[in-house]
Amino acid sequence: MNNYYTQENHGPFQLIDIGRLDLEEGGVLEHCELAVATHGQLNEAKDNAILVPTWYSGTSKIMEQVYIGPGRALDSTKYFIIVVNQIGSGLSVSPHNTIDAQAGPNFPKVRIGDDVRAQHRLLTQHFGIQRLALVTGGSMGAQQTYEWAVRYPDMVERAAPIAGTACNTEHDFLFTETLVEAITTDPGFQEGRYQSSADVAAGLKRHAKLWTVMGWSTEFFRGGRHRVLGFESMQAFVDGFMTGYFGPMDPNNLLCMAWKWQRGDISRHTNGDKAAALGRIRARTYVMPIVTDMFFPPSDCQAEQQLIPNSEFRPIASFDGHLALFGTDADAIAQIDLYLNELLSEAAPNLS
Amino acid sequence: MNNYYTQENHGPFQLIDIGRLDLEEGGVLEHCELAVATHGQLNEAKDNAILVPTWYSGTSKIMEQVYIGPGRALDSTKYFIIVVNQIGSGLSVSPHNTIDAQAGPNFPKVRIGDDVRAQHRLLTQHFGIQRLALVTGGSMGAQQTYEWAVRYPDMVERAAPIAGTACNTEHDFLFTETLVEAITTDPGFQEGRYQSSADVAAGLKRHAKLWTVMGWSTEFFRGGRHRVLGFESMQAFVDGFMTGYFGPMDPNNLLCMAWKWQRGDISRHTNGDKAAALGRIRARTYVMPIVTDMFFPPSDCQAEQQLIPNSEFRPIASFDGHLALFGTDADAIAQIDLYLNELLSEAAPNLS
Repeated sequence: MNNYYTQENHGPFQLIDIGRLDLEEGGVLEHCELAVATHGQLNEAKDNAILVPTWYSGTSKIMEQVYIGPGRALDSTKYFIIVVNQIGSGLSVSPHNTIDAQAGPNFPKVRIGDDVRAQHRLLTQHFGIQRLALVTGGSMGAQQTYEWAVRYPDMVERAAPIAGTACNTEHDFLFTETLVEAITTDPGFQEGRYQSSADVAAGLKRHAKLWTVMGWSTEFFRGGRHRVLGFESMQAFVDGFMTGYFGPMDPNNLLCMAWKWQRGDISRHTNGDKAAALGRIRARTYVMPIVTDMFFPPSDCQAEQQLIPNSEFRPIASFDGHLALFGTDADAIAQIDLYLNELLSEAAPNLS
Repeated sequence: MNNYYTQENHGPFQLIDIGRLDLEEGGVLEHCELAVATHGQLNEAKDNAILVPTWYSGTSKIMEQVYIGPGRALDSTKYFIIVVNQIGSGLSVSPHNTIDAQAGPNFPKVRIGDDVRAQHRLLTQHFGIQRLALVTGGSMGAQQTYEWAVRYPDMVERAAPIAGTACNTEHDFLFTETLVEAITTDPGFQEGRYQSSADVAAGLKRHAKLWTVMGWSTEFFRGGRHRVLGFESMQAFVDGFMTGYFGPMDPNNLLCMAWKWQRGDISRHTNGDKAAALGRIRARTYVMPIVTDMFFPPSDCQAEQQLIPNSEFRPIASFDGHLALFGTDADAIAQIDLYLNELLSEAAPNLS
């Protein structure tokens, strides 16, 4: 087992079993247990709920630390904020915490749509929620946000996909393939049958290096922002920050999420017609890329935004690239708060 | 041996032995043989010479095909154009064509400065040239161009570094490290003692994928430019174009060039003072990044340009990223021609 995915590190979260989940790729999760962290109270009208799905490698903890709290846009004194850890995240049902025949490398293939259907069941059946004031998330959280807005258009009043796309690009698919191969080519990976993450340390480090190259930006490093964060050199940053971050994670968990990430695509609802799928969205939508993001660049995000009827383009200025999501740039987080506040202050569209 | 690096594939070129070269890292090349392709005639005044050094994985052939000819800026009817293949390129002295104790993985470490000193000896002793109308090159060719302008400021009238930097960045160093590791982690690499490139095919393919992710741009793929080039999918592009390109190359040759690329740094002349080094340049200099370049981005290049006394910033608009250098975007090549023509039409600075 892996002692990284604990309540001590990532809690508090609740484990909620939503029952059997039939997966889009044909597999089944007999007990789809979701790790859920909530903040604030659901009001009597049940109309103050905000859903926050998580990103690749992230958990509910970083959302709590960086995005949620009194006085923030995601204000726990006004809203009932439900952060749902994605399948494969290591907190919800995942390769590493499955003990039956589906454990580890035998975990079934999961799609963004599976997560969103699981979340839908959680919200409607467990919490009795029929309307979401907002769905927002970063990166794979943005993929889930788009999936929500397209799949359940009558339920999502507002959507704010941050630093992510509705249809994953060919370029991003290949980038993720290089991440996957960094792990799977480590002889210690043994086709997923390693004993512990330490056996795959070299692969996880190469994976961390690729994240360093693509996750931040050239401006980040030219400006010495890694030094500002306390690392005296690129090597120290790779070792101390990036490998320190990814190193304890379970490789099969990462691969489960990566497979899902690569195939995020709302046009599966419309026979490949992206415009038709995005045209279904009824939520007031703010598309919020990060300007220096190297793999979900603003240009890709804007091309999608232009296909969403009731939407605005709100790029986040930052030198920290995609990983500004981590909260390393306070000004980027302030911009996200500003735009989410603006979005939440807008009248909800009539979804009846 | 490797039958990729032949006159049939890359010629015509001449092999010129400039003698013993003592290397900056302490090694020695007893017979520093340079592969040289020339175009046009050196005039009597010997003042119409243009030097073109080559980039990582490239040879004199692509410079001839894409950049040189009558009516082009690099006009072989007006100028004497000398294309020198860099050390490690596979045409000049390189790991794969060395047969003594320095063969393959035992090839000594070579720096950009070694190439430039070798080229200087070639020009002065073999061709009797004391003045260069222009030095220009892309990528590692730009690194060599900067090194020329800083090391021999009284010899270079004009300099046009294209899509490259004077001091390699930490970000770029790490990107190149991921290229290197893609090759060296292939079990078939055997610490450089493989029998043929085919033994390292998997590593060379991963190296090609990383080049695909970083070498072009997100806009390139969103715009379907890989399809315009004749490949029906990203997979076909990776297999047919990118792996087809890199696959036949010798891994030790690539690693020799990568090591050099990572450490390109004109501030070695001035104890790490980049401004002082760039301040030495007397050449009229056009700094020409490609706007979508992911690893030599315009912002990094402009920061250097601003430290060069007699310089202009001339970014090349293209969606093809760094590899617009290959000539895939005719409009980018037209811009390069335009700027090189403009630069060549300017009066030479007084270097006496």
